[in-house]
Amino acid sequence: MTDITILTEAALRHLVPLDLDAIACVEDAFRALATKPVVMPPIMRLDIAEARGEVDVKTAYVPGIDSFAIKISPGFFDNPKLGLPSVNGLMVLLSARTGLVEALLLDNGYLTDIRTAAAGAVAARHLSRSDASSAAIIGGGAQARLQLAALCLVRPIRRAVLWSRDRAKAETLAAEIVAEHGIAVSVAATAEAAVAEADIIVTTTPSSTPLIRAEWLRPGQHLTAMGSDAEHKNEIDPAALARADLYVPDSLAQTRLLGELHHAIAAGLVAADQDFAALGAIIAGQASGRTSPNQITFADLTGTGVQDTAIATLARRRAQAAGGGQIFSS
Amino acid sequence: MTDITILTEAALRHLVPLDLDAIACVEDAFRALATKPVVMPPIMRLDIAEARGEVDVKTAYVPGIDSFAIKISPGFFDNPKLGLPSVNGLMVLLSARTGLVEALLLDNGYLTDIRTAAAGAVAARHLSRSDASSAAIIGGGAQARLQLAALCLVRPIRRAVLWSRDRAKAETLAAEIVAEHGIAVSVAATAEAAVAEADIIVTTTPSSTPLIRAEWLRPGQHLTAMGSDAEHKNEIDPAALARADLYVPDSLAQTRLLGELHHAIAAGLVAADQDFAALGAIIAGQASGRTSPNQITFADLTGTGVQDTAIATLARRRAQAAGGGQIFSS
Repeated sequence: MTDITILTEAALRHLVPLDLDAIACVEDAFRALATKPVVMPPIMRLDIAEARGEVDVKTAYVPGIDSFAIKISPGFFDNPKLGLPSVNGLMVLLSARTGLVEALLLDNGYLTDIRTAAAGAVAARHLSRSDASSAAIIGGGAQARLQLAALCLVRPIRRAVLWSRDRAKAETLAAEIVAEHGIAVSVAATAEAAVAEADIIVTTTPSSTPLIRAEWLRPGQHLTAMGSDAEHKNEIDPAALARADLYVPDSLAQTRLLGELHHAIAAGLVAADQDFAALGAIIAGQASGRTSPNQITFADLTGTGVQDTAIATLARRRAQAAGGGQIFSS
Repeated sequence: MTDITILTEAALRHLVPLDLDAIACVEDAFRALATKPVVMPPIMRLDIAEARGEVDVKTAYVPGIDSFAIKISPGFFDNPKLGLPSVNGLMVLLSARTGLVEALLLDNGYLTDIRTAAAGAVAARHLSRSDASSAAIIGGGAQARLQLAALCLVRPIRRAVLWSRDRAKAETLAAEIVAEHGIAVSVAATAEAAVAEADIIVTTTPSSTPLIRAEWLRPGQHLTAMGSDAEHKNEIDPAALARADLYVPDSLAQTRLLGELHHAIAAGLVAADQDFAALGAIIAGQASGRTSPNQITFADLTGTGVQDTAIATLARRRAQAAGGGQIFSS
């Protein structure tokens, strides 16, 4: 019999808010990915076409962290018609010493939202101008709100401009942001207009056709594309990779297959074997981030198992400290 | 909030014994694998060398089954030194229509044991002589006992001979089998002697060097190798593939990479692209199984995600019928 801690979404929302600790935790994970013999297998992917469903399974073992997470992340895109959220799932935390199940984090995708937003903050911290005060957020979903909140934690953001294909969603989001952050928010008529006004642009959509054109980018901007986590997804004009002074993948092995880089390679704009320093190498000081205020920087985030292991471990540590969670023996 | 059924190992042992229903359930899974557009991604594998640990994640979506399992199967081989079992893990059952988590089967590997033993019975039912009355079991672990029990359900086994590198384990097992099945059991001094006495041979070890030589096999025998589920594992002399009249993989894609076939290909004895009808095709009548009492047949079982989806679905159906399990909302 082993004791397993079970944490509900409500408990996890309380234990792991999007804050500087969560950002530091994800930053540490990226640093580890660049500097330690992390074991991170390729993402397992199951597609159930007749239900417009896809499931990603991610994991990573990080030496020095005594546990590792296996995250099951389903997205079923007809769910809203049934009154259900598209994205659900859970994380299983196992001991890296014995393989025993330590905790079940029944987060329905919440921890993924947090670690994904935190990665956006980490990218902005290391790549955007330190005086970046305006943000353009492309997309109208949960990540649009969270990515902006994450930026506000690491940069002096005073103004946000939103664009979504669904203008009503952008309007609703704008009202929420004003209430939550008290910063100036506007909704742009076009993605181009949104990009024109921002120091930092974050794309948060599942688009399969580019939303941002390369020629819209201007010196000094930082762009984070976080929507693409599958081969067919593509938010950014592949030419933007050449236009950027610095392209930074979260995991080069993954962005070559699943990220914006994948499309630039497919378009013949980048060699398939071209090397790029990853975000973790920049965090660790092994490679340079932004070196001048006028550079254009571009972070390509596909989502990595080390982020899941890091955030799940943080959740469990906080639950232990708070005496939270329900213990289950099996 | 969704309701998740949680089933403990104790509940699962009660709900899903090794019986003809479990065998039929796994047989159906193999049939589906051969006849339906099953989606079964490659196994995800995480190795944690410093803890002598390995984790396999398996899954499969079977059209017609409304749920699918994702199985997390850790094996940490220093655990016995800590007084813990090597193999643990759980299965997560998700809706194939919405991706919502339906059940957590905290089986500590029990359901894997059952579906693996059931696969041995399915192989024997379709490949061994119908009058097979003697079995040789190679190995002294949990699967040695279960594979013999499974054979007894599908063939008129009257006599078993055991061999293990650890003779004491084989002696203990022999006593258990006499008590459980009331059949004649002996412990052989060598693997060769065990093979010589049997109509059906089942190898159940994690060996990385062959234990069974090709020339030991004689007409009429059936051999099931179920130990190898990783590249380095190898129980059977690769020449046995040529000596057998019929070689049958559980999943050809997997046995080419992980099974006994892998080693025969590596040894140059079998072409890497040689086709073999899988167990499911024989079950479905698309290919022939044993066609004469004198053939030597050889089943190569690496373990498939369809078996996990099938057994997890059976467990949940029985739990629902019995009103078992604890409901957890998150």
